[in-house]
Amino acid sequence: MSHPRPIKLGILLGSLRRGSFHGAVARALPGLAPDGVTISQLPSFRDFPIYDADIQAEGIPGPVELLAEAIRSVDGVVIVTPEYNYSVPGGLKNALDWVSRLQPQPFAGKPVAIQSGSIGPIAGSRAQYHLRQIMVFLDALVLNKPEIMIGTIQSKLDETTGELSDETTRGFIGKQLEAFAAYVRKVG
Amino acid sequence: MSHPRPIKLGILLGSLRRGSFHGAVARALPGLAPDGVTISQLPSFRDFPIYDADIQAEGIPGPVELLAEAIRSVDGVVIVTPEYNYSVPGGLKNALDWVSRLQPQPFAGKPVAIQSGSIGPIAGSRAQYHLRQIMVFLDALVLNKPEIMIGTIQSKLDETTGELSDETTRGFIGKQLEAFAAYVRKVG
Amino acid sequence: MSHPRPIKLGILLGSLRRGSFHGAVARALPGLAPDGVTISQLPSFRDFPIYDADIQAEGIPGPVELLAEAIRSVDGVVIVTPEYNYSVPGGLKNALDWVSRLQPQPFAGKPVAIQSGSIGPIAGSRAQYHLRQIMVFLDALVLNKPEIMIGTIQSKLDETTGELSDETTRGFIGKQLEAFAAYVRKVG
Amino acid sequence: MSHPRPIKLGILLGSLRRGSFHGAVARALPGLAPDGVTISQLPSFRDFPIYDADIQAEGIPGPVELLAEAIRSVDGVVIVTPEYNYSVPGGLKNALDWVSRLQPQPFAGKPVAIQSGSIGPIAGSRAQYHLRQIMVFLDALVLNKPEIMIGTIQSKLDETTGELSDETTRGFIGKQLEAFAAYVRKVG
Repeated sequence: MSHPRPIKLGILLGSLRRGSFHGAVARALPGLAPDGVTISQLPSFRDFPIYDADIQAEGIPGPVELLAEAIRSVDGVVIVTPEYNYSVPGGLKNALDWVSRLQPQPFAGKPVAIQSGSIGPIAGSRAQYHLRQIMVFLDALVLNKPEIMIGTIQSKLDETTGELSDETTRGFIGKQLEAFAAYVRKVG
Repeated sequence: MSHPRPIKLGILLGSLRRGSFHGAVARALPGLAPDGVTISQLPSFRDFPIYDADIQAEGIPGPVELLAEAIRSVDGVVIVTPEYNYSVPGGLKNALDWVSRLQPQPFAGKPVAIQSGSIGPIAGSRAQYHLRQIMVFLDALVLNKPEIMIGTIQSKLDETTGELSDETTRGFIGKQLEAFAAYVRKVG
Repeated sequence: MSHPRPIKLGILLGSLRRGSFHGAVARALPGLAPDGVTISQLPSFRDFPIYDADIQAEGIPGPVELLAEAIRSVDGVVIVTPEYNYSVPGGLKNALDWVSRLQPQPFAGKPVAIQSGSIGPIAGSRAQYHLRQIMVFLDALVLNKPEIMIGTIQSKLDETTGELSDETTRGFIGKQLEAFAAYVRKVG
Repeated sequence: MSHPRPIKLGILLGSLRRGSFHGAVARALPGLAPDGVTISQLPSFRDFPIYDADIQAEGIPGPVELLAEAIRSVDGVVIVTPEYNYSVPGGLKNALDWVSRLQPQPFAGKPVAIQSGSIGPIAGSRAQYHLRQIMVFLDALVLNKPEIMIGTIQSKLDETTGELSDETTRGFIGKQLEAFAAYVRKVG
């Protein structure tokens, strides 16, 4: 029996807060990956300047180059992000704006999966559809389903360790990673 | 005959580039304001850090306080912005994310008008509808019409001075400011 | 002490199914209205043809005229609708398309509130933001908050009578109607 | 040298008007198809009832079955549509709502390309992004680029014949069909 092609995924985390709920989701992903899939965190956008074409003209900042190169080096990107004010966090959008200016553009033809959550029930879904529209311009290939939207995300973490412990949520995420691996192997 | 109540508007500019086309639009607004309306630029978000709740916990950064206070002090905000990657520029969204965390929240009940442009024909309209969705959460009161979407914006500027010279565009903007002034007087 | 101006609201129901969950929400509204507010159902779009400008050229269909006139006669419209396929039900959109062609356009300057629900947790929110974008073109004045999104809507109805019995949901809806009445009195 | 796999595309037209500009675009597509690609019109949704689950319970209407079966029989769908009121025409949405209820769901895994136009410059783009969101739920595979948005569409037709004569527009459409054929061969 043949083994499926091994693939490497990178996680782009939309939140910077140390105790971020989405950080906990991101940390859980390697343990939920199907066979043949390795997942690791992409470099943070923490030290990106606010995008300004005048800065770009002076040279691409190091942290931008680093993230762009890391995205290029993986077979697919999993964006794990909260929703801020009914849309994509400004920091995450700023990161996408920066890397989109580099050539070769890192997201062109890149498979992408999205995971979001919120402390309320709507679970960041509004941010996901804005992200999908952004990804049309970037020419990324965004997985349709299953969508991961984690409502009342704070209740899905272990109270002591802060890690993602809810088995139902872990199961859903595992299913998305499986579907994403198949998608990456097909379209990537 | 009674005079309409004088109103003060502030411009929130979505671009940082020195030679920004949208900067030219912003500079034109005071000269296009109807009687009784004064318009000035709000402080830039240039020096905002990327939003991080841990930074917020240590204290609101000065430039954030400054913008928030300036928004509170005007009767209405005109957002003049390019579109980046089919959505709101990350820097502008980051600014909205920051000021939305302050109390009293500066956009709550605040009248807002939107102007965008692009070098192509779609004229930033995709960014406008994302902005409108964001403004629902912020509870701002966004003017419906007329919408200002400036296609091939580079061709609407004077080649020598770089200022907004296209009379048709100036006329449209004047009409929006007139409608916005009436809206501010009604709902503000 | 002066009494607030009495206002009349009309409900536009997005679903045609006899046993519609949203029909139950619509039936609950009159009983949840604040003092001075009367609410009644607007005529259905059940007998609207699919929009076709050739049909329009032959004369506006009777049911379209009827709905348009009913919308014009109320002080505000409450749209109560499910979400179909991550957007507005085609039937509801078709109704909006038809009435938008009449002069005076019924939604111009008309206050609108939105309520949606779904059997899942996302509660029709995706349909709401598409509706809001549509309402920009129609120049309606859509209430920002509170938003009514009823998750697991089937569990909020009385099992025997099928009526909206969940007290928390009824309370939220009452709050929206109160906010909407104040909004109508201000902007309508 | 091997020949690429022949593929069959179907056009879903969003407008019913006899003299529809988008009908002219649809009629041009077969003549713009790359080698190995045949394109024909899918059945109209003209005779669809407004979606009502009670009607569905009595049996799927014939025209719905016909369109669903036709979609299943092609390798990809090209949606050619105007924008009504900043979104998808109600008639087209109603058609999608109906066919989405059938099993196997016709759009699941189906490649889709979108073309829109308008008499103004924004060219129906607002309808395209709503369509894309709908297609996430339907699990269709929507081509990213090139996007076809035909501004001032009336000026792109031959004044005498009413057919799509503008060579630039025809060229863009040919490029999209080429990209779509490659996409269908890859993901379909």
